Amino acid sequence: MAFKSIGIIGLGLIGGSFARAFFDRGLCVYGLDGSSSALAEAAGADIFSALTDETDQFLALEPELIYICVPVEATKSVLRTLAEKGVTTPVTDGASTKTSVCALAGELGLNFCGGHPIAGREVSGFSASQNGLFEGAVHVLTPVAEGFPEDDLRALHEGIGMRVTVMTAERHDLVFGAISHLPHVTAFSLVEAVNLVCPEAFAYTGGGFKDFTRIAASNPRMWTDIFLDNDKKIIGLIDAYIDFLKTWREDIEAKNEEKIYKRIEEASSIRRGIK
Amino acid sequence: MAFKSIGIIGLGLIGGSFARAFFDRGLCVYGLDGSSSALAEAAGADIFSALTDETDQFLALEPELIYICVPVEATKSVLRTLAEKGVTTPVTDGASTKTSVCALAGELGLNFCGGHPIAGREVSGFSASQNGLFEGAVHVLTPVAEGFPEDDLRALHEGIGMRVTVMTAERHDLVFGAISHLPHVTAFSLVEAVNLVCPEAFAYTGGGFKDFTRIAASNPRMWTDIFLDNDKKIIGLIDAYIDFLKTWREDIEAKNEEKIYKRIEEASSIRRGIK
Repeated sequence: MAFKSIGIIGLGLIGGSFARAFFDRGLCVYGLDGSSSALAEAAGADIFSALTDETDQFLALEPELIYICVPVEATKSVLRTLAEKGVTTPVTDGASTKTSVCALAGELGLNFCGGHPIAGREVSGFSASQNGLFEGAVHVLTPVAEGFPEDDLRALHEGIGMRVTVMTAERHDLVFGAISHLPHVTAFSLVEAVNLVCPEAFAYTGGGFKDFTRIAASNPRMWTDIFLDNDKKIIGLIDAYIDFLKTWREDIEAKNEEKIYKRIEEASSIRRGIK
Repeated sequence: MAFKSIGIIGLGLIGGSFARAFFDRGLCVYGLDGSSSALAEAAGADIFSALTDETDQFLALEPELIYICVPVEATKSVLRTLAEKGVTTPVTDGASTKTSVCALAGELGLNFCGGHPIAGREVSGFSASQNGLFEGAVHVLTPVAEGFPEDDLRALHEGIGMRVTVMTAERHDLVFGAISHLPHVTAFSLVEAVNLVCPEAFAYTGGGFKDFTRIAASNPRMWTDIFLDNDKKIIGLIDAYIDFLKTWREDIEAKNEEKIYKRIEEASSIRRGIK
């Protein structure tokens, strides 16, 4: 089977953008959201075959795939509800951390495969959703249930232009701890430090600083969940990061010109190597 | 007087781009560079009235303004040479730190005003220079000599589309320590930490990480000089920054949800406020 209908839970930036992309490929799309304003915005987009704020009504539509598109903690609560209601339909999600979500889905015996579209933006809500958001982006799958139709889920995402890759949930959380969660901590801290030491400096920020701290303008609910959920890996990464900062401090204080030059050259060369 | 001829020392990204912009406004531009390949590239651009690798020949051209466009340490060495040769022509520079450069120019009794065009890029050399590099960018002036024709220097930069602002050298180094030098240390450290803990993560970097670490791909000579020259302010900033990182670590370890949410909200709101 290939999925012909998708039921999306959570009509924010990610859920709304998936809805647009799936509708555009001719699929039947249903939406569930507790917020009446999100439902009203979604209705205006004219892409949903049905919209509701009631889980039973949503399940009665019998979507062939249930796609959970809410922050991490809310995702776990949705998983519990679906298990209570005895749902056997394939379920996937788009939450930013995967270890605890996948462990819970496994414990609950759901027909689940975890997922993470690498295509966030620093805006949120259905009004920010857009059709091309996932075009060319990576989609990570972290499989859980044995009988899950993984090939169909892969084809679904490839069909909207995504590059699908599979890894374990643990590995996902280390990789994205390193290149997404840690950078957010560093961006928040940078904004805080500049705000403390020299707030008037914000008036002189050029493109570099703006690019560098763009990710600091992120959704607090989503990122609080991520920090709490991927806490151990993030703490380990912060520790490694602080160690490097301290050696920079030492090298600068010791005016170790040769070492400073070499470190910049190496970091610069690694960074240039990123495709 | 308004400057009718400009002698540029150092034909890299900044010197080359100034040369292009001044030539475009009808000024006579001379160039001095010790590198024969830089001179050859500059000759190909067909904008210089004269090019040389000899200081005496350069000074004999009698430019009305001497514009030093080399890294910090090289700038100091040029200042010493100009003083030795008894130059009384107005001199300015574009180096990224200002306290030590301005102090030296003052001691040497040069007719000097410090400057810093806020328009770097992660590329270097004359071949990377471009006419529009400074369009709309801020140019900071840090005055030194009493009799320096500051109004003319301001008009020169405004004439190529820059927004000129004046501050003390000390203040400049704190402001740019905060929004430029510290972010570079954090970007270098981030690349180093990810490279140590999870180098395979580089394969999954999306736009966020790339924007965030773009400044890590910087010129080692220029940034070694900056770190050594603005060492005290940078060390103070690194300390403040590490303090914030440590409290993030503590809040995450303690799973202090309320505080994490509030800190993200605040940092996000400060960041959104940056124009």
